[in-house]
Amino acid sequence: MTTIHDDPEDFAEDQLAGWLALYADRVRGVHGGVVALPTEGAERQVAVVVGGGSGHYPAFCGVVGPGFATGAVVGNVFTSPSAAQVYSVAKAADQGRGVVLSFGNYAGDTMNFGLAAERLRAEGIDTRIVVVTDDVASADEVTKRRGIAGDFSVFKAMGAAAAAGADLDEVERVGTAANAATRTIGVAFSGCTMPGATEPLFSVPDRHLGLGLGIHGEPGIQDVPVLPARDLAALLVERLLAERPEGAGPRVAPILNGLGDTKYEELFLLWGRVLPLLEDAGLEVVEPEVGELVTSLDMGGCSLTLQFLDDELERYWRADAYTPAYRKVAAPVAALVPAAAVTEAAAEATVVPEATGASRRAAETARVAVEAMDVLLREQEETLGRIDAVAGDGDHGRGMVKGIGAARRAVEQTDREAGVGFVLGRAGEAWAASAGGTSGVLWGAALEAFGRVLGDDAEHVDASDVVAAAQAFADSIVHLGGASRGDKTLLDALLPFVDELRSRVDDGADTAEAWRAAAGVAVEQAAATADLRPKVGRARPLAEKSVGTPDAGATSMGMVLTRIGEVLAVRARREGVDA
Amino acid sequence: MTTIHDDPEDFAEDQLAGWLALYADRVRGVHGGVVALPTEGAERQVAVVVGGGSGHYPAFCGVVGPGFATGAVVGNVFTSPSAAQVYSVAKAADQGRGVVLSFGNYAGDTMNFGLAAERLRAEGIDTRIVVVTDDVASADEVTKRRGIAGDFSVFKAMGAAAAAGADLDEVERVGTAANAATRTIGVAFSGCTMPGATEPLFSVPDRHLGLGLGIHGEPGIQDVPVLPARDLAALLVERLLAERPEGAGPRVAPILNGLGDTKYEELFLLWGRVLPLLEDAGLEVVEPEVGELVTSLDMGGCSLTLQFLDDELERYWRADAYTPAYRKVAAPVAALVPAAAVTEAAAEATVVPEATGASRRAAETARVAVEAMDVLLREQEETLGRIDAVAGDGDHGRGMVKGIGAARRAVEQTDREAGVGFVLGRAGEAWAASAGGTSGVLWGAALEAFGRVLGDDAEHVDASDVVAAAQAFADSIVHLGGASRGDKTLLDALLPFVDELRSRVDDGADTAEAWRAAAGVAVEQAAATADLRPKVGRARPLAEKSVGTPDAGATSMGMVLTRIGEVLAVRARREGVDA
Repeated sequence: MTTIHDDPEDFAEDQLAGWLALYADRVRGVHGGVVALPTEGAERQVAVVVGGGSGHYPAFCGVVGPGFATGAVVGNVFTSPSAAQVYSVAKAADQGRGVVLSFGNYAGDTMNFGLAAERLRAEGIDTRIVVVTDDVASADEVTKRRGIAGDFSVFKAMGAAAAAGADLDEVERVGTAANAATRTIGVAFSGCTMPGATEPLFSVPDRHLGLGLGIHGEPGIQDVPVLPARDLAALLVERLLAERPEGAGPRVAPILNGLGDTKYEELFLLWGRVLPLLEDAGLEVVEPEVGELVTSLDMGGCSLTLQFLDDELERYWRADAYTPAYRKVAAPVAALVPAAAVTEAAAEATVVPEATGASRRAAETARVAVEAMDVLLREQEETLGRIDAVAGDGDHGRGMVKGIGAARRAVEQTDREAGVGFVLGRAGEAWAASAGGTSGVLWGAALEAFGRVLGDDAEHVDASDVVAAAQAFADSIVHLGGASRGDKTLLDALLPFVDELRSRVDDGADTAEAWRAAAGVAVEQAAATADLRPKVGRARPLAEKSVGTPDAGATSMGMVLTRIGEVLAVRARREGVDA
Repeated sequence: MTTIHDDPEDFAEDQLAGWLALYADRVRGVHGGVVALPTEGAERQVAVVVGGGSGHYPAFCGVVGPGFATGAVVGNVFTSPSAAQVYSVAKAADQGRGVVLSFGNYAGDTMNFGLAAERLRAEGIDTRIVVVTDDVASADEVTKRRGIAGDFSVFKAMGAAAAAGADLDEVERVGTAANAATRTIGVAFSGCTMPGATEPLFSVPDRHLGLGLGIHGEPGIQDVPVLPARDLAALLVERLLAERPEGAGPRVAPILNGLGDTKYEELFLLWGRVLPLLEDAGLEVVEPEVGELVTSLDMGGCSLTLQFLDDELERYWRADAYTPAYRKVAAPVAALVPAAAVTEAAAEATVVPEATGASRRAAETARVAVEAMDVLLREQEETLGRIDAVAGDGDHGRGMVKGIGAARRAVEQTDREAGVGFVLGRAGEAWAASAGGTSGVLWGAALEAFGRVLGDDAEHVDASDVVAAAQAFADSIVHLGGASRGDKTLLDALLPFVDELRSRVDDGADTAEAWRAAAGVAVEQAAATADLRPKVGRARPLAEKSVGTPDAGATSMGMVLTRIGEVLAVRARREGVDA
């Protein structure tokens, strides 16, 4: 939707005025469009004047500058500029070495640029015309094809040739060759809306895409069901390779162009699918461009362009250009140390610290506990999700399962000689990295804190050490999460657990006995959160809705602590020793 | 709508893989994100590591490179990266001079970057944190504000400082100062759609905008009715100026940022409204950026950022940077000849060619005819529009009125000493420039052709000259439009008119008499086009619908020729001479 405007009738003029103000340091406005400022001391060059309607930025004025177009004619939105506009811009761009007018193949443009050329010639300015016809979907006959994103490739070749000092015949020849070597195929996902209009110019049926889009809000030529990225890439590449010009070599300059609403990340993702297909076809990709180069207001869709390069076209494609919207300067990239030569920062030593027997035994308990938690949380995933969905987004069970699963795998990979500090450290890291979100960070950091207190070099791990570790576990969550008791979070189960654990141990209970009793308190307190209103976190806006349901995080905390208590009891019975 | 993906779960990873393939010559991928390749021979520098979720491109990996960020951590879509990811990227980016971690102020990022900082410090890597809090709408208290497009301004300052060799304390100080000097306010027009989702994350009520947008698909804080561009600019500027930091000088570095669906032309238009308001407020604008710098998938909306500059921040803002998505190199622009110094290509001499008396008399007839046509077409605008709407877009009347209106004004401004060639030349130019579209070009070129045949230096203008001129008029339309008789165009009235005119003149009739008879034929033939099916032009797809209605262009041609005939008759009677 085109939203920002004053009088929609004046959209094209108003936007150009803003653009000219923005780039007053590098272009100047003339009747009908813009011309580049000349570079100090540069030789006079052939003027390459491009153009068409507005709504295609950075086409066409965005590519006016050193190494690219000398001038751009700016028509109304999706409307050819008039012959008088073309004439005026060409006249201002002319440096005495002749003018090439270049534009996409549309009736209005052909007429107006053609008329301007006649007038320029009548005044003694040698003027040539190069029409771009890259859109393979628009007609079988090449001369009837439209110009779409390949405009960019053809204009760039001529701009670079002109900047390199080529004469008029030469620039025209390069342009004609560039057009003959350039093919584009596109798809539309959704229409664009003209300034002032409330409805898009067209719409693509739901779950479809329009194959063979136009860049003036024309829909595709054929609607096909929407495709995954892999299949879309295959479709685009196949259609272009079928149109490979006779005698074309292996080098290609690709453009994966977004129409407006289809964003950068989507284009990068698609490029990741397109590139291997091009390589599989034996093509060598030269300095690909992925981004928005020829747009159609906010239309959804993209196109793939291939320019089949010979040595000359490759040189012009690689050449520097510095325009408002397109800036290519080889030097900064050439100066980089190639990735292959960069010594990877020494992969962090995963040397397992020496561990005492007591720490190794505690590590074994931790392994078993993590495994048991994994089983438990898989069993309870759905229940936890249901509780969370009452006033949250219902992903608590899923998040816990992802976190504990990653922790279990990490633990399984640790050396059997490792101590409990090292093992829980890896478990916590893995949890945080995989579960994502706030609860993943909290659980991960808390596990690491628990392990850090027990350490790898303890001579013994007794009940009071476990109390200290549990306290560190809770402290880390308080510190990172910033919540307090009564806020309806997992702390409402965890903090009473730690208090009860300490009190039982102070009264002489062993770890397993104290833990079991404390876990019982955690379960009770988790259930009691049903009466609370959430005070922090994302459930806050839905506070009222959550009353009557316990907090999902407190509930899972109660479950996990109970299961660990069972593990500790079994191990205490089996080993007859503490922890 | 986010359309291109395979498994939506893998969107963030897949897009990053494609991006890394695209920019393999300038960055390298590491676990959790990307780091810049070092520049050959450059001093080691402080590592500036930025980051956050995906979906904001070019934030964050797009700004990794010389002069900007040293590394970027890439999280899932709109999700903080994990501490392990941050740690991994920072570790790879570290060059032994310490690390600054910088990110927008969100709970998840604060936690994960904070944890990573602790771990880096524990390993002896001096690590600082600079949190960006530019969004004035998100909270009154500055430290609680979110980071949005001002991320870019703050990161750039630190990246430039680090590249200039500043030490860790210095880079941290610059970052803190940059954040304290940076303010942003934004508006949302429409929501964005997560990969794999079918509904947007939020929607703005129809004809409203959300003031105070977020960049994670959060709607604005307050919905207000949609505003014209002028009022939107005033709103944004006012809100920011109210937040001007104490002691701020007059220089500002503005960013007018598009969120994704709001396109370049809209942003340029808005910039044209914002700039004068800033200047009126006494501010000096330094190298403004208008474009997509921190996006939110395909969300509709924009934001205005002002960084209030002191000498140091101005130096860093102006500094070169060369990253995949942001390339600023001062040299090419500095080398341009300033616009003021460019001698405007000598404005085309509007010297009126000497004209004979006969040509001046014919010019007078042309003036009266143009005036009469203007009156006629205004009267008939609605009728012609109605005819055109049956199988066209209904704008024929409007287009003719615009064309003849411009032609009349042009003619009125020509020197009274001018000949008919010059006068009709100016009329044709003006018609084509103002009416736009195909019919504007045709009428404009045809009038010029008519004038050219009569010329400015004719010793007499007799009936056979008028026949030749009418023939040139018709030929130019045939040549440019490519249609033939029977295609249901204006040629179906015009060509029989020319034939009849010639035949009458051959039979000895004077101009007025022959013209009147020929115009009668034109009107008849125009009416007869009702039986035809259109063969060319935009009415072709609606061919069947048009049968039974005459062609609008042929109809207006018949009307115009008739009215000119009346003018000629009056003038012939008054002057008693031919033409």
